[in-house]
Order: sequence, then structure tokens, then C-alpha cells
Amino acid sequence: PVAVGPSRAHRALWAVQKSCSSRGTMAKRVAVVLAGCGVFDGTELHEASAVLVHLSRAGAQLYAPNIPQMHVVDHVKGQPTPEQRNVLVESARIARGNIKDLATLDVKGLDALIIPGGFGVAKNLSTWATQGKNCSISKEVESVLRAFHAAHKPIGLCCISPVLAAKIFPGCEVTVGHDTECEQWPYAKTAEAMKELGCKHINSQVSEVHVDTRNLLVTTSAFMCNAPIHHIHDGVGNMVREVLRLA
Amino acid sequence: PVAVGPSRAHRALWAVQKSCSSRGTMAKRVAVVLAGCGVFDGTELHEASAVLVHLSRAGAQLYAPNIPQMHVVDHVKGQPTPEQRNVLVESARIARGNIKDLATLDVKGLDALIIPGGFGVAKNLSTWATQGKNCSISKEVESVLRAFHAAHKPIGLCCISPVLAAKIFPGCEVTVGHDTECEQWPYAKTAEAMKELGCKHINSQVSEVHVDTRNLLVTTSAFMCNAPIHHIHDGVGNMVREVLRLA
Repeated sequence: PVAVGPSRAHRALWAVQKSCSSRGTMAKRVAVVLAGCGVFDGTELHEASAVLVHLSRAGAQLYAPNIPQMHVVDHVKGQPTPEQRNVLVESARIARGNIKDLATLDVKGLDALIIPGGFGVAKNLSTWATQGKNCSISKEVESVLRAFHAAHKPIGLCCISPVLAAKIFPGCEVTVGHDTECEQWPYAKTAEAMKELGCKHINSQVSEVHVDTRNLLVTTSAFMCNAPIHHIHDGVGNMVREVLRLA
Repeated sequence: PVAVGPSRAHRALWAVQKSCSSRGTMAKRVAVVLAGCGVFDGTELHEASAVLVHLSRAGAQLYAPNIPQMHVVDHVKGQPTPEQRNVLVESARIARGNIKDLATLDVKGLDALIIPGGFGVAKNLSTWATQGKNCSISKEVESVLRAFHAAHKPIGLCCISPVLAAKIFPGCEVTVGHDTECEQWPYAKTAEAMKELGCKHINSQVSEVHVDTRNLLVTTSAFMCNAPIHHIHDGVGNMVREVLRLA
């Protein structure tokens, strides 16, 4: 009887797309692929939120694979639990319910692709978490990346997501921040692994993006850098702006 | 063997506090209370992310109650599932692991309190979801709110969270947006219920905040408004700025 239950909740539309479609020819349609909800087993939700805030004047459509998560991590303890969760269902927390199965993504109606970071990229979209440079990429995710690349549509990747491009597009230029490990860059070995795959890694600060103009790849380090969250937010914003400029 | 597992992940510190404590006397210590992770059963994560981005130059400490969630909602279907999850453990997804049990909060070391919205506020911090104005507030949450109020330290509330103040501080001035239901304001009946509790409700736009200078309450509508996410982000930012100004 009270105005706050899940069924009523769905009446509040996810207004991003509505506001955009009314903008006519200016709007770009951007697919954002999620990998769960939470830094240690899914998409890093602050990176996803920053992507959506900066895409809000364009048109975002969220997707995630309809598969079980590799892990459910207790984010207090930092340890996996025996629970089972689904990547699409958990990603819907970030999407406020407005999300599609990645299997339905059609590059034709879309102008660009963005994949935020988080361990979900290394666990649910690929096997990077356990196999590093010898990983495999999920077939669905690989075919989506290849489709945007073949159509010369830009791809934005942040945090750990650039490893997907490194694996699929050898010789591409990417950044995940710095290639020398220190307190500020605790994951710098990722850059070394990408170089071994034949990529060119460009060292960069958290606010900077690198644009590979040949492959239309836009990358930024985000939470690969141990930085305050407003720096992450601004760096992700710069990535989104470059993707929209290229789209 | 690879640089992306949960245990390594914890080496990447949540840098908000570090960057702040080095700022010396300028930094304000702000407690942010979460209620899970996801709009339909926990804290609305984009509101929480916006709070943390705008608090990043101050010092945020995250808290949540260590209790079972009222619901686990499948955010694709908008329906509760039989699962059981814990409010503190799920809130830790937003906190990237750096969160404390709400029972340990001591107002003495803190300058302000912020509670983002989401159905978790109406389900896990109170019984508003099922009982509306006849709800009860969790004892822990009520004592925290009363402690900040008694110490004349500001309290920032957005989305559905102002109902907590409406219930505890009769006669206070708050906004949850508009009091007439329409497509843009699907939850407007909340304003009516708060008026019945003796509050003064001030109609406002999503970018605006209302400051009750007597009670040091700062409120804004956030996702009570069916608005694009960058408007939500900016409105929450305005709330945080007013809270810091009063702190």
C-alpha cells in the first residue's frame, strides 16, 4: 500500500535514453557491457557510474552476458563465498533494471562500445584472472569487440578492460597506467603482460587517456591507479568524451 | 600467479581517506551510511558513487548495519528472490571493502553524516517500504541520526532518505522533490506522507537542495525524480557541498 516497493519502483524509468532520443541527430548510441556488480567479482560500479554520468547526454544501452559469475566475493573479507550469482542479474543493479542480454547486441544500431573495469572483466568476460596473457575471451565478448572494430566504431576501455583488446588486436596501443609496480600502481604487471602479447603500452596518469587512432581504441587506467575517486571519475569522463568524439 | 585476484586487490587501497588526512585541518570527516547495493533492495549505487566523488576532497568513512537484508530483488525482473544477503557485506561492494559496522560509529570523531537513497533505506534502515509514515526506524540508525542532530553536525539526505528525518525530527523542513505525482515525479506521495508526520515539504527541482538551517538538514530529490543521471549526479553534488559548508 506504500509508495516504495519493487513493482512501483519500475515506474521510475531509467531516463537516460528518453532524454537522449529527444535530442535527435546529436545523440550517439553507445553499448556499455557490464560484468556483474562489485569490484572483486563484477564490474567496478564507480567506473560504471562515471561512464553513465558522462554518457548521459548521449544514449547508453547496457548489456551483460547471461552466465554464472566465476566468483561471488564477500567484499568485506575479500574472499570468495559458495554462493552462485548471475552476471546479467547482478549487472542489472547498476542498470536499475534496464539491461539487455549481451547475446542480443547488434552493432548495426550502435555507434560505440564501452567496457568499464573491475575483476568481472578478468573473471566473467575472460579468464585473465587465472590465466593472464594465456587467457581466453568469452566468445560473445570477442565477437562484439571484433564487430565494433571491423565497423570502425570506437571502443572505450578502462582499468583492466584493455587486456581484452590486447588479446584480440595484437599490436594495438593501450594504457592501463604505469608499467612499474609501486604503491600508486599496484597492478603494473598487467602492462608487462600486454607488451608480451605484442601491444604497445603507453604510460599515463589517471586523468589521461590514450587514443589508438588506427584501431579507434580509447583507454584509461581508472582504478588500476590507487587514486582518489574524483580522479577516477574525471579520467573515465575523459575516456567517454574521446569515444563520443570518435563516434 | 596472475596479478588480478581478490587478495591482491586489497593491496589497492581505497585512497579517499589517505588523500584527505594529508590535507590537515581542511578535511572534514563525513560518515556515509549505506543500506546494501542496488536500487530495489539496497543503496542506490549511483547516488552513493556521486556522494563519494563529491566527498573525495574531504574524508569519507562508510558504515552499514550488520543485519540481513529485508529483500534480495532480482533487478532484471523487479521481483524478490528467496536469497539471503547481509546489508554490511553487500554495502562493501560500494565501499570496495573499506567499510565499518554501523554499531561502531562514534559521532565524536565525525563532522557530518550522509545517507544516500535507494529502497534499502525503506527496507533495511526502516520499515517505510511496508508501513509508510507508521514505520519504525532501526534503533542503530535512529541513534546515529539523533547523535549528529544533538551535536549540531549537519546531516545530508537524498532520494527516500529524508523520510528518516521526517519520522525522527517532526517539524523539520525537507524536500523529496515534488508533492504532485506525474511521470517526472512517480513517488510524489512520499511528500504527502511526510507532511502528515508534521514536516514542512519544500517542492524543488532535481538540481536543487533544501537546507533546514535550524536542524542542519540538507535534502535533495535525486532519483525520486525521473531525470537523466547527470542531473542526479549534480544534485547530489550540491547536497554534499552544502553539508561540507555547514560542517
